[in-house]
Amino acid sequence: MKRREFLKAAGLSGVATTAAAVAMPAIAQSMPELKWRCTSSFPKSLDTIYGAAEIFAKAVAEITDNKFQIQVFAAGEIVPGLNAADAVTNGTVEMCHTASYYYVGKDPTYAFGTAVPFGLNSRMQNAWMFFGGGMELMNDFYKKANIYAIPCGNTGCQMGGWFRKEIREASDFNGLKFRIGGYAGRVLQKLGCVPQQIAGGDIYPALEKGTIDAAEWVGPYDDEKLGFQKVAQYYYYPGWWEGSAMLHNFINLDKWNALTPAYKAVVRTASEMANTWMQSKYDAVNPAALRRLLAGGAKLMPFPTPVMEACLNAALELYHEVSASNPDFKKAYESMIAFRGDQYLWWQVAEYSNDTFLIRNRTKV
Amino acid sequence: MKRREFLKAAGLSGVATTAAAVAMPAIAQSMPELKWRCTSSFPKSLDTIYGAAEIFAKAVAEITDNKFQIQVFAAGEIVPGLNAADAVTNGTVEMCHTASYYYVGKDPTYAFGTAVPFGLNSRMQNAWMFFGGGMELMNDFYKKANIYAIPCGNTGCQMGGWFRKEIREASDFNGLKFRIGGYAGRVLQKLGCVPQQIAGGDIYPALEKGTIDAAEWVGPYDDEKLGFQKVAQYYYYPGWWEGSAMLHNFINLDKWNALTPAYKAVVRTASEMANTWMQSKYDAVNPAALRRLLAGGAKLMPFPTPVMEACLNAALELYHEVSASNPDFKKAYESMIAFRGDQYLWWQVAEYSNDTFLIRNRTKV
Repeated sequence: MKRREFLKAAGLSGVATTAAAVAMPAIAQSMPELKWRCTSSFPKSLDTIYGAAEIFAKAVAEITDNKFQIQVFAAGEIVPGLNAADAVTNGTVEMCHTASYYYVGKDPTYAFGTAVPFGLNSRMQNAWMFFGGGMELMNDFYKKANIYAIPCGNTGCQMGGWFRKEIREASDFNGLKFRIGGYAGRVLQKLGCVPQQIAGGDIYPALEKGTIDAAEWVGPYDDEKLGFQKVAQYYYYPGWWEGSAMLHNFINLDKWNALTPAYKAVVRTASEMANTWMQSKYDAVNPAALRRLLAGGAKLMPFPTPVMEACLNAALELYHEVSASNPDFKKAYESMIAFRGDQYLWWQVAEYSNDTFLIRNRTKV
Repeated sequence: MKRREFLKAAGLSGVATTAAAVAMPAIAQSMPELKWRCTSSFPKSLDTIYGAAEIFAKAVAEITDNKFQIQVFAAGEIVPGLNAADAVTNGTVEMCHTASYYYVGKDPTYAFGTAVPFGLNSRMQNAWMFFGGGMELMNDFYKKANIYAIPCGNTGCQMGGWFRKEIREASDFNGLKFRIGGYAGRVLQKLGCVPQQIAGGDIYPALEKGTIDAAEWVGPYDDEKLGFQKVAQYYYYPGWWEGSAMLHNFINLDKWNALTPAYKAVVRTASEMANTWMQSKYDAVNPAALRRLLAGGAKLMPFPTPVMEACLNAALELYHEVSASNPDFKKAYESMIAFRGDQYLWWQVAEYSNDTFLIRNRTKV
């Protein structure tokens, strides 16, 4: 650290410094003034996902009395949303808030950070990350891109999307032009589906014109803003490709390693706070949005079980194919899937039976 | 602040101080040296619940470079576990880590901080606290005891406990001596049950001798340590009285108000991190413990639906009785129950149908 920076960090510029320079290094080292830029992969209109990055940055600033300031930029302000990880890798920004599965084009292993079809629910994803070896395993992988990742948000289980026609059997996916995110497009291709990559703002007109037949986005709260129910009334569930969708703070590894231990603890703790903040906010706002969508004409439709089974088989086939040639993918898949099996063994007992009873009796007060 | 304390806080004792005393107040105010004592309501052997307080305190220390140190004491080291809140109210300690429902004897409204029979699951409890008005509502109530509370941990849905005989119908609760925590004893009394308050270490011998007929504790991971399966083989689920059990940091309100804004942010953020840490750890360790219990002879038994319904009706009757004479209880109940109805409206769609499918297909890899 240069002398001028040191003095600035210690808040002592312009005053007699001899004594302070002797006495202050501990404080100067732990709480230096620091300004980072965080590029979000999301627009501000997705206030819950985008908001998680803001809540994280606000906590960091409050904890450090504004000594560590992280400015959040919406997708496109510095780099496009899908280039966020690259901007971190090459040091354009110190960090980004993003969905790891946006980068499956580089390597499908990225999917496990966010969601894979028939993967973990939100609590299980936390448990896998923090206690099931997931965070270590994924950071071993992200290291190749010079990235250190910390979970920071989740949507919970998403919806299956908006369809202009009913899905009655697996063959109805054949030829279907479906706007779908994440790694699910690869699964549905096996059923003849033609997955489409279309940015949020362009989905509605594409669906209206019939350029696409169906589109999935997030869940009731975010879907409502885009108005899909006006042009595709069948609202399918569940979004089996995103049983939960975890967001991350991707931090440039050199910048992470250069942080003081105190600042590492600040970033980790604030990320984990925002991780729950985002899930809780989605949980709180989705029910009212669902009611409004139903009142506006949306027709709730479950994917028929045989359709789900065909999708599961297609997913397993894909996982085995990719595992055969990609050891990182294989390692993450085997870790996640073993964890999932154990989790549902336990969940089917207490959690699930309790939820079952309360769903049936939810209106009794 | 006395001059000596100020100098100590700024890390400057023993050096030339004129310049520093001018330049340092911002740092001195935001990160003063502070030592707090946190009495846990739990023994160290409950390493997940007790561990949440330790993880919280560790994060506070790391973030502040050990300037803010919170020492955690096990139940009994300073005050007995069930006296933790009193010790906070009267300032014996600055804070405690406890279950709000331990204090239902003072006022049943305390139950809503942790769990009420047929209440919220873990994610819903977070959503209610952080976005459904729960935290403001409960802190309005805790204020009467000079306490400010922040969520800090959850067990998830607990088990229904260990029974020496099967529960086939609601009348089997009649005369049953059942060690049970929280507010559920009051509900089961309506069915003729005789609820017992017995500390953790004394449950096993009581069950072995037949002094009691049944006992519930937490879930597989904690239950296994106490060895109940050796003396009561029927292991019932779900623990409908604790669909989730949220722990809190209870902080003396004067001590909370005296914290700098930065330290308030540190305590809040670290509490919320530990809140998820505890739930994730339980989720991660319960499945293997369940397997071991089953291998050791435990017989998993669901409470029959008519028994659950009789218990729900008894709970609703109790809620209406207490609401009639206790406006704090009524306010919390109405807020929680409206939130629950909305939550399960949404959960039954995406979350539940996704979990249902994955439970049925959990062994497919």
